[in-house]
Formats: sequence, structure tokens, C-alpha cells
Amino acid sequence: MPRTQGGESVLSRAVRIIEAFGPGDTALTVTEISRRSGLHIATASRLVEELSGFGWLQRDEDRKVRIGVRMWELASRASPTLSLREAAMPVMEDLHSIVGQHIQLGVMEGDEVLFVERLTAPGAVINYTRVAGRLPLHASSSGLLLLAYAPAAQQERIIARPLEVYTDQTISTPQQLRSALAEVRRQGFAFLAGHLHPAAAGAAVPVRDPLGEVVAALAVIVPNDAIARSRIAVLQAASAAVTRSMEYPAPPPR
Amino acid sequence: MPRTQGGESVLSRAVRIIEAFGPGDTALTVTEISRRSGLHIATASRLVEELSGFGWLQRDEDRKVRIGVRMWELASRASPTLSLREAAMPVMEDLHSIVGQHIQLGVMEGDEVLFVERLTAPGAVINYTRVAGRLPLHASSSGLLLLAYAPAAQQERIIARPLEVYTDQTISTPQQLRSALAEVRRQGFAFLAGHLHPAAAGAAVPVRDPLGEVVAALAVIVPNDAIARSRIAVLQAASAAVTRSMEYPAPPPR
Repeated sequence: MPRTQGGESVLSRAVRIIEAFGPGDTALTVTEISRRSGLHIATASRLVEELSGFGWLQRDEDRKVRIGVRMWELASRASPTLSLREAAMPVMEDLHSIVGQHIQLGVMEGDEVLFVERLTAPGAVINYTRVAGRLPLHASSSGLLLLAYAPAAQQERIIARPLEVYTDQTISTPQQLRSALAEVRRQGFAFLAGHLHPAAAGAAVPVRDPLGEVVAALAVIVPNDAIARSRIAVLQAASAAVTRSMEYPAPPPR
Repeated sequence: MPRTQGGESVLSRAVRIIEAFGPGDTALTVTEISRRSGLHIATASRLVEELSGFGWLQRDEDRKVRIGVRMWELASRASPTLSLREAAMPVMEDLHSIVGQHIQLGVMEGDEVLFVERLTAPGAVINYTRVAGRLPLHASSSGLLLLAYAPAAQQERIIARPLEVYTDQTISTPQQLRSALAEVRRQGFAFLAGHLHPAAAGAAVPVRDPLGEVVAALAVIVPNDAIARSRIAVLQAASAAVTRSMEYPAPPPR
């Protein structure tokens, strides 16, 4: 792998260019990319130009740089989440028409929940989620659900960390988190009322692959009122429907 | 830019690795990647390893290589299509609940239509579209619509090419295509019955940005029957709603 003088590979620098785009950044100047990536402006400019040549970035009329449609296409088409999303989407649409609230599908990515699909309801309760957005594991119903079925080492790592507080309901101590995870496993769902925002409640159930592994959380975000919990049964039915329509994973090599 | 012995940059080789993933390929072996990219297997293996280190690719238990969730996340979040998709999705959901058929949103990409969102209806008519899938411009209602509003040079390029035939209804001659494009511009929509599949009809209308430029096609795929055309009015109303909820584009520099 050819390396630049600093010992860092060209590929690593190109990745830093793309990683400069944060949540909500649709367009950046080369100067901003240079500052965020820590690359010299000449290096950033050269890499932006080369990536634009492949259609992975694009320069606008206003000289700003955006992620190119070609990169989006490749990433979407071959995404490891594609078969999950394709299995889940028709079920999510049915669910959406029944409950008329936000429906979302999240997977564990790093130590956060990453939302890979979302159906919104105009005028429905407030929701912090967006597609390809992330939420912390301890404060969202999808995150807590996924953490409850995660490896013990990851659970201990999260329990040992400071837990960010969003409302007076947010789980904020190791003891509360440990007990909440045990409750999720016992019940088979996560229900958090007012943990991220006082007006919203989230209910999440596991989506299992045909081998029984938990691969995602299917959640509904509803107003924080007395009927919120009643959505869990329909969520569980929907989750089972997703599993049935998933492809059987390839067997591991012997 | 450091270059390899053959004069090709490392970045270009890395792009060839990712481009090896075609529509429907969720997992490839390193051997397949090497063959498709034309790179030596040792080079392919080294680049796969480096890209996996960034989370852009991932190796499964079965040794197959997949596009990594991190690449999907970056591409989805910063996608130039994001503001369009976010403006369109709530409207598409409403439309979907009214017509109960496939609803899709396509943009021009290269000389094809690329579908950036799709809502399906279980049990609805056959449809060849998938998210991040492509269709030819002359044979799909979304493609014909976008081509009708494309620059004249692109129209002439497509008209001059051989036109692939899918059914006995497919537009197959330069004269037919030229006349179909004029009809789309005159009517303000594209309606193709049985051009891709005898049982399906597509109706597409333009989605304009707040400056009046056509930026996407909003389409419904319905059974090829007498009522198919009646969907156009509701599509046009939905398209206007998308434009209203779009962000005003940044003004060009003076």
C-alpha cells in the first residue's frame, strides 16, 4: 500500500475526507473538509477532485462538496442491511397504517443504535430519529432492546460509562441500567416512557433472523399516555412477520 | 497522489473494489472481487482488508465480503438525495395509503433512472423497481418523464441508441421515442401501459424544486387496466405537496 510521507495511506486520507461529513451535513467547502479531516488543504482538494471523478463526491455550482449519488447507490444496493430492510419494509408499512405513529427499524452499530428505516406520521408525537441517525443505547427503547440481547462484554462496557441524561426519567445509574436490561430480557420488549423527551414513549421488540438471533429492533414512538403500552402486541406480531419473510442466512463454513 | 506501478492510483483501485458489487450482490468472495475488478488477488485482498478496517467493508463468518454499515451510514446521511427523499417520504406514505399500489421516486443518474425511495404494496401488481435499482429511460414511465425534461443533448443521445425491447408495447424506434417525449411535455405526465411487463402500467409526474426545475419523477405502478390513468390527478397533487415541503436551494454564487 503506497503511503504518504506521514506514513498514512492514501486510502485512509480519502476515508477521512468522507468521514468529514457529519449528521446533517449535506454540503461542505473544501476548507471545512480540510479542517475537519486534519488534512492540508492542497491534499484535501486533490482527493476531493479524484473522488469527484468517480462520482463519489460532487461539486455544486456554489463550489460546495456533497456526497455523490454513485456512492449512495453503491452503499444502498449492496448494504448488509438491505435484506433486513426489504423484509421489514412491507410489514412496517402495514403497521404504520394501523398505529398511525412513527415506526422505526434500528440495528446495533458500534455502541449506538443506528436507524436503517423509518416511517413517520405527519403530526405524530415528537421523535428524534432520522434514517441513518443514531441514538444512545441506554436512553432509547430500540437501544435498550438491542443492548439487552448484546454480548455481556458490551453490556458491561456501557454500564461502566457515564450515562447522558435527557429527562428526569432517563436511566442514569449502572444499577438502573442493569435492572432495565434484565427486565427487557424477561418481558421480551423494551418500553421507555419519557426517557428522551417527556411527551414521547417508545416501545421496541426484537427482530430475530430465522436462526433466532436478534438482528434489529422494531419500534413505535407514541404519545406518552396510558395507551402507549398497548402497542406492544401488534409490534410483536409484526416482528414475527419480518422474520418469516427474511432470507435464511448462509451456513457458516465447516 | 501516489500511484502504483501501472500508473493507477490506490484510490482508483479501492473504488474498483467497491464497484465490483453489482445490483443484488450482498456478499462476494475476494476471488470474485479480484475477477470483477481486474485486480490481482493479493492487491484485492490487501485493499479489502484496509477498507474493512475503516468499517467500509466487512468480512462475514463465511469469509464473504459485504459493504460495511459505516459506508451505508455515511452515504445515506450526507446523500444529495436526502432533502428530496425527506420532503417526499411523508407525501409518498399518504399516497400509498390512498392508492394501495407501488409508489416510487426516481432521479436521473447517468442515462438511467435511479430509484431513491419506494413503497410497495403486498400483493400489488408486478414491479421491477427496487430502492437504488435502475431502469432504462425509454421503457419506464419515470425514465420517460425525466428524459422529457432532460437537456436536448441527452435526449438525442438516447434517441440515437438501440432501444431494448421488453414487450410488444415497448418504445423501440427513434420516431416513437421522439413523439413520446413530446407527448409527455405536452401532457405534463408519462403514462406507459405494458411497456416493461404486460400486466403493469406506470404513471409518472415531475417533481419540481422551488425554482421550477424538474428534479425527480414520482410514479405509481398499477395493474394495466382501464382505471390506471385515473391515478394521475392524485399523483400531481402529491408532487405539488413535495415541492412545497422542499428546502429552497442555495443561490448560485455571483
